[in-house]
Amino acid sequence: MPEEQADGRRRVVIESLSPQIDCGKYPIKRVVGEKVVVEANVFADGHDQVACQLLHGRVNDTTMQSCPMLPIGNDRWRAEFPVLNVGRYEYTVEGWIDRFRTWRSDLIKRIDAGQDVHVDFLIGARIIEDTASRATAEDADFCSRYARRLREKKDTESKRNAALDTELLNVVDRYPERHLVTRYDKPLGVVVDREKARFSTWYEVFPRSCSPEPGRHGTLRDCEARLPYIASMGFDVVYLPPIHPIGQTFRKGKNNSVAAQPGDVGSPWAIGSEEGGHTAIHPKLGTLKDFKKFIASANENGLEVALDIAFQCTPDHPYVKEHREWFRARPDGTIQYAENPPKLYQDIFPLDFESSEWHALWIELRDVVLFWMKQGVRIFRVDNPHTKPFSFWEWFIREIKQQDPDVLFLAEAFTRPQVMYRLAKIGFSQSYSYFSWRNTKEELTDYFNELTQTEVREYFRPNLWPNTPDILPEFLQVGGRPAFMIRLILAATLGASYGIYGPAFELCENAPFQPGSEEYLNSEKYEIKHRDPDSSGSLKDFIARINRIRKHNPALQSDRHLRFHGTDNPSLICYSKATNDLSNIIVVIVNLDTARPQTGWINLDLNSLGLGADHTFQVHDLLGDGRYLWKGARKYVELFPESLPAHILHVRPWVRRETDFDYYL
Amino acid sequence: MPEEQADGRRRVVIESLSPQIDCGKYPIKRVVGEKVVVEANVFADGHDQVACQLLHGRVNDTTMQSCPMLPIGNDRWRAEFPVLNVGRYEYTVEGWIDRFRTWRSDLIKRIDAGQDVHVDFLIGARIIEDTASRATAEDADFCSRYARRLREKKDTESKRNAALDTELLNVVDRYPERHLVTRYDKPLGVVVDREKARFSTWYEVFPRSCSPEPGRHGTLRDCEARLPYIASMGFDVVYLPPIHPIGQTFRKGKNNSVAAQPGDVGSPWAIGSEEGGHTAIHPKLGTLKDFKKFIASANENGLEVALDIAFQCTPDHPYVKEHREWFRARPDGTIQYAENPPKLYQDIFPLDFESSEWHALWIELRDVVLFWMKQGVRIFRVDNPHTKPFSFWEWFIREIKQQDPDVLFLAEAFTRPQVMYRLAKIGFSQSYSYFSWRNTKEELTDYFNELTQTEVREYFRPNLWPNTPDILPEFLQVGGRPAFMIRLILAATLGASYGIYGPAFELCENAPFQPGSEEYLNSEKYEIKHRDPDSSGSLKDFIARINRIRKHNPALQSDRHLRFHGTDNPSLICYSKATNDLSNIIVVIVNLDTARPQTGWINLDLNSLGLGADHTFQVHDLLGDGRYLWKGARKYVELFPESLPAHILHVRPWVRRETDFDYYL
Repeated sequence: MPEEQADGRRRVVIESLSPQIDCGKYPIKRVVGEKVVVEANVFADGHDQVACQLLHGRVNDTTMQSCPMLPIGNDRWRAEFPVLNVGRYEYTVEGWIDRFRTWRSDLIKRIDAGQDVHVDFLIGARIIEDTASRATAEDADFCSRYARRLREKKDTESKRNAALDTELLNVVDRYPERHLVTRYDKPLGVVVDREKARFSTWYEVFPRSCSPEPGRHGTLRDCEARLPYIASMGFDVVYLPPIHPIGQTFRKGKNNSVAAQPGDVGSPWAIGSEEGGHTAIHPKLGTLKDFKKFIASANENGLEVALDIAFQCTPDHPYVKEHREWFRARPDGTIQYAENPPKLYQDIFPLDFESSEWHALWIELRDVVLFWMKQGVRIFRVDNPHTKPFSFWEWFIREIKQQDPDVLFLAEAFTRPQVMYRLAKIGFSQSYSYFSWRNTKEELTDYFNELTQTEVREYFRPNLWPNTPDILPEFLQVGGRPAFMIRLILAATLGASYGIYGPAFELCENAPFQPGSEEYLNSEKYEIKHRDPDSSGSLKDFIARINRIRKHNPALQSDRHLRFHGTDNPSLICYSKATNDLSNIIVVIVNLDTARPQTGWINLDLNSLGLGADHTFQVHDLLGDGRYLWKGARKYVELFPESLPAHILHVRPWVRRETDFDYYL
Repeated sequence: MPEEQADGRRRVVIESLSPQIDCGKYPIKRVVGEKVVVEANVFADGHDQVACQLLHGRVNDTTMQSCPMLPIGNDRWRAEFPVLNVGRYEYTVEGWIDRFRTWRSDLIKRIDAGQDVHVDFLIGARIIEDTASRATAEDADFCSRYARRLREKKDTESKRNAALDTELLNVVDRYPERHLVTRYDKPLGVVVDREKARFSTWYEVFPRSCSPEPGRHGTLRDCEARLPYIASMGFDVVYLPPIHPIGQTFRKGKNNSVAAQPGDVGSPWAIGSEEGGHTAIHPKLGTLKDFKKFIASANENGLEVALDIAFQCTPDHPYVKEHREWFRARPDGTIQYAENPPKLYQDIFPLDFESSEWHALWIELRDVVLFWMKQGVRIFRVDNPHTKPFSFWEWFIREIKQQDPDVLFLAEAFTRPQVMYRLAKIGFSQSYSYFSWRNTKEELTDYFNELTQTEVREYFRPNLWPNTPDILPEFLQVGGRPAFMIRLILAATLGASYGIYGPAFELCENAPFQPGSEEYLNSEKYEIKHRDPDSSGSLKDFIARINRIRKHNPALQSDRHLRFHGTDNPSLICYSKATNDLSNIIVVIVNLDTARPQTGWINLDLNSLGLGADHTFQVHDLLGDGRYLWKGARKYVELFPESLPAHILHVRPWVRRETDFDYYL
């Protein structure tokens, strides 16, 4: 007996619904104002016509909205919906046999073939009467009138006109037969973030290095004074390494030496001392009041503050005394310190997520973030999330976003690809990427095609960093000032979100701790630095120019429409970005060689830019300021590492011609 | 509160388990003796080592068997299991943190770095003691002994030797920590068929045309007499169009004419008359006893009988009187006949699967097949399954296979790709394919790559037909005898399963009903044919030769290892098939031009054949009988449509050389 069949007469099937991550286990990501384009294979047995609709709505809304899907060939259907608010949305697809449209199109064929259709009119009348039973009073009345015409009119011509009336079609379309509707297995999710999740420009700065007086420990107030400078370069997120008290036990000295000298300030990531833990502020940086003032001042400068979340403790952290159960005990009674054997990090006690008291630990960590949210923080950069369980982060981010869906998390997980992608799937809003080590044309093309042209783009938003306090890439070490310009252009135009660690970046600091190392010499992680941001060699004006270009060109504010174009020189890379509607198009050509001018031919995929082969268009170099009239796909370019390492071309498809004169024709 | 988290300490995640059809909704297919190679991404946070195992077993077995998975890079793991019986299997993956292996490999690093490890020995002892608590008495004893050595031995060297003992590793590996194991979301299914599901050679014949006397209606006994002839050509399935009584009402005449003349026999697919329906035998064909004898005789000839299942009725079918509720009534009281507007098929009443009595209808149709199974039939060719609901077939095939998992179904669904694939997913063992209309090198390459190199291969087993009673392809109409040879070679070597409609095929019948039609002139569907299978132009010996090649070369008995190789002439196609272990390799080169000899260079992908560039190998042309010594990828070939339209080359990687002499060295 077919017990397990709810109703064996349900004939429509729905397959391959996209977008969909891991069988619907994880939501896709969007920002406010974007669309979700949904496709599915919807079909039935036989030759009856099927109809289908997209259902969508915010999670917890009582009803979902619907919109009809349209066929795009090979039994695939498409529809889209906009997401207008932050929060969670759901979508799914329903399909059914469209009896009326099947009948109607068959009728046309029968009449065209000159067949006797008097019984068919009766069949149609019955379908219309069925529709009436589902309709509003007004529409039911309308349907009944048409059904009567099909039943009672004497002449075939009148019946035919009634049957094929498009007004009737429109009314009947409004009342799909709910009976025997197939709905896709389960609703799929969308997390909708505010726009900054997609488009953001980050600047990392150590407050303790912001003192104008050499030798004095900088404060939040000193850092506050630096905000106009940061804002002037066009950044919109200022990210601070941890601002908490720093442990004394096993404190690291300069250049990560094991024995700190008196006066060594320690690493900000070694969190916790007698002065407090993750909700305290390092006394030398200032007070909570100073921090709130810092936030307010940042906001006035058009900057948001991103705080570092590093869930780990020094031996001096209050948790160690108060919650010994959150740390792993060794058989000798000591607490397990961090290791990556044979490396030992005795200054750090990792939290033990396998503790039997994991519930309480999770709650406490969530409360840390809620505390900083209460102070006005809405962006968190999470240190090493890949060393804590995925299930913790999944719960944690959902909890926080239920409190405030505006909160964003950047995952600093420099680890294996599957792990990075998993963290993005389970909720991180943005992710550090492998950009820091992708230098050649092939490396960049392959990696950014993977990020933007595959399913990855539905959940992983890369944030591109040419440098960080942990990473001084070899390209910057060996390429001098042009290397910094090239990597900045690439980060700022390949990525809708990017960031730099300054002022080390704009001052082109490039001395490694030792050859083959990516650590900075005299790293700011272990000592206070004093620099002059106004020094003559600074890239600050160049950075400001690039960020202005980003701000004025929506094409650069999304990664979705990135396309690579051919070049005949491996040192030249060419790519474009465009808005959905092609109203803003940017073509970028970069010389990847820091040492020599490079020339070559580029071969534009005109089609992807909405241009025809015989279309004359203007390109305006937003970097070098040249303007050129172009036509066709192939162009010759010449780029100079020191002066003009790249073109950032704004494409203007419309060129004034004789036809633009009022009096033409 | 993290309520929904079963246990937040479960750290291992499992993703992208393959093979998997539509998120595990449908089983993959295998035949007895094949393997299922399972892969999954398995990883955890941090740097602890993970371990994982494949679980597999027959559905309804009380426990699943397990085998360890091995890493293949990028966090992906692999294992395989054989399927030794017909029926349903399940598989899934489990992963966990391997505390012992993590500890062991860390210990080695620590010792190598000269660190103090006395506490680490105690940590290891605890892990081993934990293992003991899960182990058999003997192994527990073994573990305890080692734990004691780690705790009590005085010298580091002894402790080290105990810790790293591989025997200890093997024992501990046997008792993975079940605590906090992650299991993949749901078990995935495998339907295991007997070998014929993968490798079969079909011959379609109309029993009523088997009479040796012109003018007499052939019988099952006449057809029985034809069996040795069919067997002599190397076929192993003899497929009969429906053998049931044929309706009188609106019976179609010769060449599908609307008005039958007296004496016209009608179409076998117009099932049902006063003499009976789907479980009756046409009186002119014989009796049930004759049919059973036919089956027995077929089996003696090495042939299995495949019966046609066409779930539709003539107006004269007993169901029409007995189960009017299974047909759709029109408003004028008549029963709805089959249509594809404006085409009308008044001789056929389709069963109404939207009837409120669908339950009873489903049961009845299942019982029809159970009836023929009782007579000894194990293969059914299903006519137009795409005109009945998918949910019906899914239930129907599952029901039948629960009774007898040896039963096979071939889907005759010449329809849109998604529909064909869906029917395969829901259970059809084999499917007719688009092969009949794929003629050029590009068409064949694209289509067979789709069938054999994508996920489709997991559930869709194509059965290739150069002709059917419905399809006389234009290639055969215009290409003469070479066209029949070429299409036979392609069908027999591209497809592990193929079939021909005979004797029309071997006699090279190629007259269409009218130009542009694929219908045969004087089609056997509407009249009795009399032919001489022994006529001189017959391809029977050629067919026998090809089928012998198939039988002796396992490479041709599976589609999984099909690979296309380059040719510099679009009229030459080259491909290879091989067994899993490369013990049997066949390279086929076909001239697709029926009119002219073609020459050109082929470019073998030696790697896919397990051959090196400097490897001399012998190829033996199983068709033309030539033998050649080859070396390298590029070879020149010349093929003649009339005499030798193809090479079917058996590759023998080993050529005798001086080193083969006993006395060499």
